[in-house]
Amino acid sequence: MRANKVKDMWQVGGAVLNGWLQIPSAWSAELMANQGWDSLTIDMQHGLIGYETAVHQLQAISTTDTVPIVRVPWNEPGIIMKMLDAGAYGIICPMINSRAEAEAFVGACRYAPEGYRSVGPIRARVYGGDDYGTAANQTVITMAMIETAAALENVEDIISVPGLDAIYIGPADLSLSLTGTVQVDYTDPDLLAVLDTILGAAQQQGIAAGIHTKAPEFATKMVKKGFQFVTVSSDSSLVQSGAQAIVTKMKGKANEPAADSPY
Amino acid sequence: MRANKVKDMWQVGGAVLNGWLQIPSAWSAELMANQGWDSLTIDMQHGLIGYETAVHQLQAISTTDTVPIVRVPWNEPGIIMKMLDAGAYGIICPMINSRAEAEAFVGACRYAPEGYRSVGPIRARVYGGDDYGTAANQTVITMAMIETAAALENVEDIISVPGLDAIYIGPADLSLSLTGTVQVDYTDPDLLAVLDTILGAAQQQGIAAGIHTKAPEFATKMVKKGFQFVTVSSDSSLVQSGAQAIVTKMKGKANEPAADSPY
Amino acid sequence: MRANKVKDMWQVGGAVLNGWLQIPSAWSAELMANQGWDSLTIDMQHGLIGYETAVHQLQAISTTDTVPIVRVPWNEPGIIMKMLDAGAYGIICPMINSRAEAEAFVGACRYAPEGYRSVGPIRARVYGGDDYGTAANQTVITMAMIETAAALENVEDIISVPGLDAIYIGPADLSLSLTGTVQVDYTDPDLLAVLDTILGAAQQQGIAAGIHTKAPEFATKMVKKGFQFVTVSSDSSLVQSGAQAIVTKMKGKANEPAADSPY
Amino acid sequence: MRANKVKDMWQVGGAVLNGWLQIPSAWSAELMANQGWDSLTIDMQHGLIGYETAVHQLQAISTTDTVPIVRVPWNEPGIIMKMLDAGAYGIICPMINSRAEAEAFVGACRYAPEGYRSVGPIRARVYGGDDYGTAANQTVITMAMIETAAALENVEDIISVPGLDAIYIGPADLSLSLTGTVQVDYTDPDLLAVLDTILGAAQQQGIAAGIHTKAPEFATKMVKKGFQFVTVSSDSSLVQSGAQAIVTKMKGKANEPAADSPY
Amino acid sequence: MRANKVKDMWQVGGAVLNGWLQIPSAWSAELMANQGWDSLTIDMQHGLIGYETAVHQLQAISTTDTVPIVRVPWNEPGIIMKMLDAGAYGIICPMINSRAEAEAFVGACRYAPEGYRSVGPIRARVYGGDDYGTAANQTVITMAMIETAAALENVEDIISVPGLDAIYIGPADLSLSLTGTVQVDYTDPDLLAVLDTILGAAQQQGIAAGIHTKAPEFATKMVKKGFQFVTVSSDSSLVQSGAQAIVTKMKGKANEPAADSPY
Amino acid sequence: MRANKVKDMWQVGGAVLNGWLQIPSAWSAELMANQGWDSLTIDMQHGLIGYETAVHQLQAISTTDTVPIVRVPWNEPGIIMKMLDAGAYGIICPMINSRAEAEAFVGACRYAPEGYRSVGPIRARVYGGDDYGTAANQTVITMAMIETAAALENVEDIISVPGLDAIYIGPADLSLSLTGTVQVDYTDPDLLAVLDTILGAAQQQGIAAGIHTKAPEFATKMVKKGFQFVTVSSDSSLVQSGAQAIVTKMKGKANEPAADSPY
Repeated sequence: MRANKVKDMWQVGGAVLNGWLQIPSAWSAELMANQGWDSLTIDMQHGLIGYETAVHQLQAISTTDTVPIVRVPWNEPGIIMKMLDAGAYGIICPMINSRAEAEAFVGACRYAPEGYRSVGPIRARVYGGDDYGTAANQTVITMAMIETAAALENVEDIISVPGLDAIYIGPADLSLSLTGTVQVDYTDPDLLAVLDTILGAAQQQGIAAGIHTKAPEFATKMVKKGFQFVTVSSDSSLVQSGAQAIVTKMKGKANEPAADSPY
Repeated sequence: MRANKVKDMWQVGGAVLNGWLQIPSAWSAELMANQGWDSLTIDMQHGLIGYETAVHQLQAISTTDTVPIVRVPWNEPGIIMKMLDAGAYGIICPMINSRAEAEAFVGACRYAPEGYRSVGPIRARVYGGDDYGTAANQTVITMAMIETAAALENVEDIISVPGLDAIYIGPADLSLSLTGTVQVDYTDPDLLAVLDTILGAAQQQGIAAGIHTKAPEFATKMVKKGFQFVTVSSDSSLVQSGAQAIVTKMKGKANEPAADSPY
Repeated sequence: MRANKVKDMWQVGGAVLNGWLQIPSAWSAELMANQGWDSLTIDMQHGLIGYETAVHQLQAISTTDTVPIVRVPWNEPGIIMKMLDAGAYGIICPMINSRAEAEAFVGACRYAPEGYRSVGPIRARVYGGDDYGTAANQTVITMAMIETAAALENVEDIISVPGLDAIYIGPADLSLSLTGTVQVDYTDPDLLAVLDTILGAAQQQGIAAGIHTKAPEFATKMVKKGFQFVTVSSDSSLVQSGAQAIVTKMKGKANEPAADSPY
Repeated sequence: MRANKVKDMWQVGGAVLNGWLQIPSAWSAELMANQGWDSLTIDMQHGLIGYETAVHQLQAISTTDTVPIVRVPWNEPGIIMKMLDAGAYGIICPMINSRAEAEAFVGACRYAPEGYRSVGPIRARVYGGDDYGTAANQTVITMAMIETAAALENVEDIISVPGLDAIYIGPADLSLSLTGTVQVDYTDPDLLAVLDTILGAAQQQGIAAGIHTKAPEFATKMVKKGFQFVTVSSDSSLVQSGAQAIVTKMKGKANEPAADSPY
Repeated sequence: MRANKVKDMWQVGGAVLNGWLQIPSAWSAELMANQGWDSLTIDMQHGLIGYETAVHQLQAISTTDTVPIVRVPWNEPGIIMKMLDAGAYGIICPMINSRAEAEAFVGACRYAPEGYRSVGPIRARVYGGDDYGTAANQTVITMAMIETAAALENVEDIISVPGLDAIYIGPADLSLSLTGTVQVDYTDPDLLAVLDTILGAAQQQGIAAGIHTKAPEFATKMVKKGFQFVTVSSDSSLVQSGAQAIVTKMKGKANEPAADSPY
Repeated sequence: MRANKVKDMWQVGGAVLNGWLQIPSAWSAELMANQGWDSLTIDMQHGLIGYETAVHQLQAISTTDTVPIVRVPWNEPGIIMKMLDAGAYGIICPMINSRAEAEAFVGACRYAPEGYRSVGPIRARVYGGDDYGTAANQTVITMAMIETAAALENVEDIISVPGLDAIYIGPADLSLSLTGTVQVDYTDPDLLAVLDTILGAAQQQGIAAGIHTKAPEFATKMVKKGFQFVTVSSDSSLVQSGAQAIVTKMKGKANEPAADSPY
């Protein structure tokens, strides 16, 4: 089976640079896949991406050796299994708040006896290879999002679920849940401490920790802390910020400066 | 944040005229949006509309000031949140039969601490404005469908869920559940009494009541009763009835007069 | 090969009632196909319909025995042949202003030696039958639009092109070309006389004449004159006029009464 | 209402030959529908097919009298009801492991009082007829997949759920669950005995049993055993095996002989 | 009819800042439309955009007051008229090398007697207003691309075609044609002189001149020269350059620095 | 620039095995691309494939090293250039009957000064490499279809057009044009002699000759003759013939044996 470069990097202590897709287009996906990201995540939760476009994007990413990951809209086995069958090499699942939710998520990603994923890896086998059926459980990555006060409280229960490969921090939801306001690329020491707590728990368990960021500077800090999977910006944000920069240069002022936009 | 005209109308006691979209096309949506309805609902439950078309329809509706609402296929957080992120200003959720179901529904529509909606309003923020994140909980409308005997029995428990803005009656399912046959635009006094019961409960709770109708005459009666949200017909029905009228005029008789069609 | 009901009706002197599709949706097409029209035309010229949707609409129409016709965007062999291969049983070609243009159009619809259509009726053969290849030239209908002053001048040259089955009048373009203003469902005696001229030419040549209309009353008059193919309204117009009627009833006044809209 | 040919065949003891769609295209669906299968199943679980394509495929199948069936991605009422409203005449639901799951599944397919399906059969009524609302509960087929050790243990509880019309065996998942390796077209006597057990239970209950197979030879054996619904291969497999045969003939060796591929 | 802001700006001597869409997505189009560009051009020539996506993009742009323009793939009346009917307020036509080509292009954009555009502005009338039919000829913009040696030679013949509103310089093709190598954002004095020649011819004729650029600096120079329509970058380029910047910051080196990329 | 394996094989006297895509799906394209064909042709002429699907198919093919070729619907520069910009490494153009047509075709595929292709290889450059602009003229293949009596007569004029890399015989159209009936995989000695004539002309000119076939046996004969590019069957035919074989085995008789189907 085709190796999972993300898993390989984690095993040697490396940090994965992940790109983020929110534009529903196989072309923007292919363009992003050619820019040097280690992995690309198709965001089916907050991105404007439905199932059929996501499959086209998986194909587009597969024109390169960038690792294709999918964030599913919710912890629901139907869509998790569909994306795995379509060739996703990793699933990021939002809002995992308890051990039971983590078990349900991981189980959907694993064939029996380790889970309850149904057999039929139609495109995954073409992408991964003929031995996909027997090697997938050891190759496909599962990442549970830690992004609420409840998840923080249950973090050790969650990360110890067998078969969970990593946790992924959603800073916007996490800060909203903990402080009542949305923050990203934290500067607040209390929130930074929370990141340390979660990271520490993951490291103790021996699984990887990842985090969503807005800018390379913060992402670099996170990598130095020990995070092994950092997302920086998104295709959608690149269009917006790039256009704003041009319009501002040409007109003095762009349409709507997104001053303190937390997204 | 862009105001929600539906909520504004309700607050001054007005009645909203709602159009209904079942054809999967952004063009029919845009055409409908230009005819003077106060709001338009994209019916992802019984309409033949999937996620990606629904997003295109939200964009089409946004070329006007008609308020975009979505009826989701089922009380499932993944799709509810996706449609809100795509810019729906209201969600109609089918088959709410208990307080627990109503709480799950409303929670999916509200950011913490009022609910568990995940942060990431990608298109909603472009449509609604930069302050969407902080104003959405007060702006987005939640409407629970009351359409079974169970819902009727639990109506007070349902409507008192904090954050629920309105109930919406599905007369076809309600009559089937109560009487064993499908009826719409009721004439049966017992069923009309049921409408009064539900309306009364909503009014006592101080939330709005809405109802699905086939014809302006019945819709007008409902408004006079006190319903503040009436849907009349649908794009699909307009094509069918309009074509039947022409074919009948030209040929004497159309293909299949839908004599007592309850739909 | 499956018979062409339109051609059969013409041969016994009948008049075909044609429906018109401008909404890009296979569902509105299927709905229209079930209302009793003799034929349905997918309008790829002014309708908002591209190739892939048009194919889905041909499939949708084929769930019934309504005859599928396509109006192509322009007199271009690539799209004409693609639509025939996809199963169209008739092609309406806009803006045929000369004999040469008519010959180019008809040739694109006929296999050698009668024309230059390329062999490969992929879906047409599934729809029409195994003998499509040998029977298509006698079954598929060609209709040239007469809609300019030049076409009027050259009408006899045009209609005498071998293989042309019918002409189709576009009243909006024709009136604009002749009078400088757009009119449909003519009342102007001069324009009505033009219709007679064109109809007479077609009848003398022994081919059918068709016309686009807005309302059953005018269409009926045209049939009485001798027109054998009348289109009345469109799916798009039915949505618009139906919605306007409801909004007007409910609100007293719809959004924008299209007072003297000629379209 | 249009009869369900599958149900009719079952009632006279016949065996249904079912084709399987995994390619997301209305054209491959229409082509398959013209080859003489009794029914065709749109595989929304392991096939690469999303909602909107599935609807187009239902339309394509409806150009013939082949019975349209859908395998849904998971036991989730939203998608089950959407596919029924779109005109599916049968639903195959994966991974039914308990009586409760079977009841939830069957309930989603039946109108009250037999279930909780919501009323609004938009395309189903056009396809099935005006009396769809009252006849659907007796016409639409429900098939629960038996494909785990748990399902085997609970098979009698499952098959006795009122309204369940058939069970369908998923041999890949079943063998993985029972033996730890994936097998199809079983030769292992123990697994063949399991098929007998499940078949026997279905027969005793008086409902039909179906099974997924790779090749006509095995399917024929299954029919002889008493299975009344056999799927053989899929559109996707036909493309792959057909191409492999040509490439092998032309080059001596195809790209990647799928030696012991179980799928 | 809704005014054409681009034409209005030209009439008072202003310079239009135009954005460029090459990603086939209505979301990236809507996002771009909210950044303050005066107009946005959907590039159907070199962008990866087909007809149906282009229509969705026109709808997306119409949620703002940004002026929607389309560059068509070629000087072909079918697609020019389809895009105008869909609501484009301007057409940029590539490779206009002679007066005859310019006349054919302009004629396709104008109703009789000024041209031969066919009547049927289905979405254009909803977007532009009820008087679209009579006002369109004065509102819709025609822009002919000057991008070959032949065009340069014939530039005066081309720009004097009645109804042509502007010329638009394609620097890549123009430099290739004149010098044998592709250049953009010219520094070569000979090529800069060519720009002056073309600009001068346009100014003498009293029509606007536009040019495609890569960066704000060059665009600003062009505006200072007198160009009244400058495109800067594209959505596709913004994704690419934005991603390159992040990857370079994070990894030291991005995938493939597009060193001297002229595109 | 990524080498063109087809051109490389030709230069060493090899014969290319080409697969053929007529199903509009990126999945069937990817599946075909993994079966060992040297090249795959997306048939936009007779296949049911529109522009946007063709782009997705090009991406799907690019997940392998199979060479992507496109047959365009007609000799029209707009679509030829669009497909090249999308990454096609070869264009097959139907119905080239004269030197002028061949020149127009080849010119559309070549940048100045060898042709008039417009610069903007958006996806082609990502697929082919940064030097696409300068290397494309030597890498991209042009294939003119010889498929009429006129083309046969003008074959030497056609094949001597500079920049034409190969001719491709369409046997169905050619036999229809020459004999009045459609034949493929010829057995008629006169038609076989025609193939020799065309092949001989190509060989004398030093360009490759290709031919469309139905079965490996005939294709092998053609390769032995000296043809260097043979297409065998298509995805669509594989689905049909594969299904027919199964249904026939299971039922004794399939739906409609396509006895002497020439397609």
